[in-house]
Amino acid sequence: MANLELMRRLTIGHTTKIVLLIMDGLGGLPLTPDGPTELEAAHRPNLNRLAAEGCLGLSVPVALGVSPGSGPAHLALFGYDPIQYDIGRGVLEAFGIGVPVGARDVAARGNFCTVDQAGNISNRRAGRIKSEEAAPIVARLAQIKVPGVEIEVQPVKEYRFVVVFRGEGLAPDIDETDPQRTGVPPMLALARAPGAKRTAELVNAWIAQARQVLASEPRANALTLRGFSSDPNLPKFREVYKLRASCTAVYPMYKGVSQLVGMDVQHFEGDRPDDQFAHLKKVWKDYDFFFVHVKPTDSRGEDGDFDGKVKVIEAVDAALPALIELKPDVLIVTGDHSTPAKLRAHSWHPVPLLLWAPGTAMPDGCPEFGERACMGGGLGRFPATDLMPLALGHALRLERYGA
Amino acid sequence: MANLELMRRLTIGHTTKIVLLIMDGLGGLPLTPDGPTELEAAHRPNLNRLAAEGCLGLSVPVALGVSPGSGPAHLALFGYDPIQYDIGRGVLEAFGIGVPVGARDVAARGNFCTVDQAGNISNRRAGRIKSEEAAPIVARLAQIKVPGVEIEVQPVKEYRFVVVFRGEGLAPDIDETDPQRTGVPPMLALARAPGAKRTAELVNAWIAQARQVLASEPRANALTLRGFSSDPNLPKFREVYKLRASCTAVYPMYKGVSQLVGMDVQHFEGDRPDDQFAHLKKVWKDYDFFFVHVKPTDSRGEDGDFDGKVKVIEAVDAALPALIELKPDVLIVTGDHSTPAKLRAHSWHPVPLLLWAPGTAMPDGCPEFGERACMGGGLGRFPATDLMPLALGHALRLERYGA
Repeated sequence: MANLELMRRLTIGHTTKIVLLIMDGLGGLPLTPDGPTELEAAHRPNLNRLAAEGCLGLSVPVALGVSPGSGPAHLALFGYDPIQYDIGRGVLEAFGIGVPVGARDVAARGNFCTVDQAGNISNRRAGRIKSEEAAPIVARLAQIKVPGVEIEVQPVKEYRFVVVFRGEGLAPDIDETDPQRTGVPPMLALARAPGAKRTAELVNAWIAQARQVLASEPRANALTLRGFSSDPNLPKFREVYKLRASCTAVYPMYKGVSQLVGMDVQHFEGDRPDDQFAHLKKVWKDYDFFFVHVKPTDSRGEDGDFDGKVKVIEAVDAALPALIELKPDVLIVTGDHSTPAKLRAHSWHPVPLLLWAPGTAMPDGCPEFGERACMGGGLGRFPATDLMPLALGHALRLERYGA
Repeated sequence: MANLELMRRLTIGHTTKIVLLIMDGLGGLPLTPDGPTELEAAHRPNLNRLAAEGCLGLSVPVALGVSPGSGPAHLALFGYDPIQYDIGRGVLEAFGIGVPVGARDVAARGNFCTVDQAGNISNRRAGRIKSEEAAPIVARLAQIKVPGVEIEVQPVKEYRFVVVFRGEGLAPDIDETDPQRTGVPPMLALARAPGAKRTAELVNAWIAQARQVLASEPRANALTLRGFSSDPNLPKFREVYKLRASCTAVYPMYKGVSQLVGMDVQHFEGDRPDDQFAHLKKVWKDYDFFFVHVKPTDSRGEDGDFDGKVKVIEAVDAALPALIELKPDVLIVTGDHSTPAKLRAHSWHPVPLLLWAPGTAMPDGCPEFGERACMGGGLGRFPATDLMPLALGHALRLERYGA
């Protein structure tokens, strides 16, 4: 029986509260074999205290050796097999900015890029133009009409936008148009399945007009489309886990994936962990499960900024007392995947994980929270999809299996 | 999605090089509870240095508690589920000595044995007769004709040979004729499935003639047949992993299993690790993946020769600098299974494994390579079929899963 089915069968209502605090890309690597990782280098008295009282482990997002994207990595943390539920970036980004995507609509994530006079990409992100500069360009793209389909175009952030195609007989099996390198032109949309041929033609008709609209732009004079996808109709947290779930995230994609599993996305002032924890206090009585997403650990990792990533972790640690004061029954601190500054990219390394549940956890005697402490942690190494059952178990929200 | 499908989807071309150094039957047991294993007893400064810089783990060849044969154990290391791909010894041995076996041919491994006057087996390996003694006997077996089928008989080594049956409507679902003990006669070939009934009859017709041919032999006066099998048409390394793969092995069976997965089998002078590493240097630029197989660790283990097995490990360690000088991006040292001298047999114990990848591995602080160090290693204990994804990940040869 898949995890979700077992959970649907065993979950019971309860008053216990679970917090899942994700530092995106938390896992790291030491710069020298005997040096510390980013997490190990951070001054983290609160995390270490939770580690000493709780238990540690390592979570495997998708499979050993496989580096996950943020979408599948979060789905796994939420208990959904990321290989069974293969969800495109288009629908994640669209949900993230509040643009509805139905099961028969097709959404794509767009990137502005710069092409040279020969039409070859010279900058894959249009020099990371600002949101203010991108907004009016997106507004002009939104005017494009293609017969037979309704099209919504909305800005996301900086050089990123979303396109949603709505109409009869659409299908999302379309290859991305981003060649993933410079020196070559953006590609046309290509159907991966016969049923998506007409959709690809409509997309290409839109691209042809978009090229004319963008031709006079100095930087955002071309675009690429990725992650063609429809609403996957995922089972929802309320139904599967009997949890009223809340998402406190700053970045659209994480709001998107939370909405796909039925979480309420919170609106709050500010964008720091303190702001997120302050908001949690306000809605504490309204929910059972609180997903809190911290992005900059991943961003600093991708920048190769070891010290910067350390500082982000230290800021989270410093803010933690406000969260602990809320007295969650289960508090889990982990990442969705590793992003070692050394590699400047998402990686496959299992992710350090801390589970603190004063009433129910087995303290494993690890005195600090770090990758190497987690290797010897009491939870061992386990698939990320087992985290929700662990959380629910420690929250006494699962009934006995069998008599 | 099975591992191979996921790999087929995620693997990308790269210039990184991976070495998989297998000491057959590497895992051992201490002779007393607080004594060292064979590996722990060996003087192994180079392996210990690699361990200190890399990370350790334990690999499970087939399933906990299950002792694997060399064929399934190697398939698992190569990433093929050994339960899904159940490949007979016949086809492995045939490939190993360069005898082709098609998907509709049936190959069996033959053993000469000695029977007494009552026809009961008195020695299951015909007193381990030498290859020179066996060759002319095999040549006489090769003369046997059975209507409706073409038959090829070839010597392997000592008392071992291969028979391949080629013709229409053959099927390999046939029980072995080796009773696996003395004091009873060799059995007849018995079909396990209705479709193999005719094949069993043809095999028995061949056995009947072979008995007459062998009757006058002093030692090899009977035979048994095992591992009836056809070419399983395995997915190949080049296609699944995008790897040009090379095999440097001395024994036929390991050449056979390598060929089945699409490796190029190397011909080289000598049979020691030094010779193998020297040959690697010659073909270093031609391949991405180098499988190096060292047999005598297993042979000494099966002999119950603890000190002999220690010496084989020490010889590999002494030869290692020539391999390290080639600067592989990923170097994995492990066994296909355990063969503790204490048990004189293949065993089920998870196999010590060392992964060294200076650019990408998480150093786990284990200062030496041994069974008990591996129990606390950062890679934990994992199915052998996860080794290839781990190797490819550490070689940066997998693209991100999902956005």
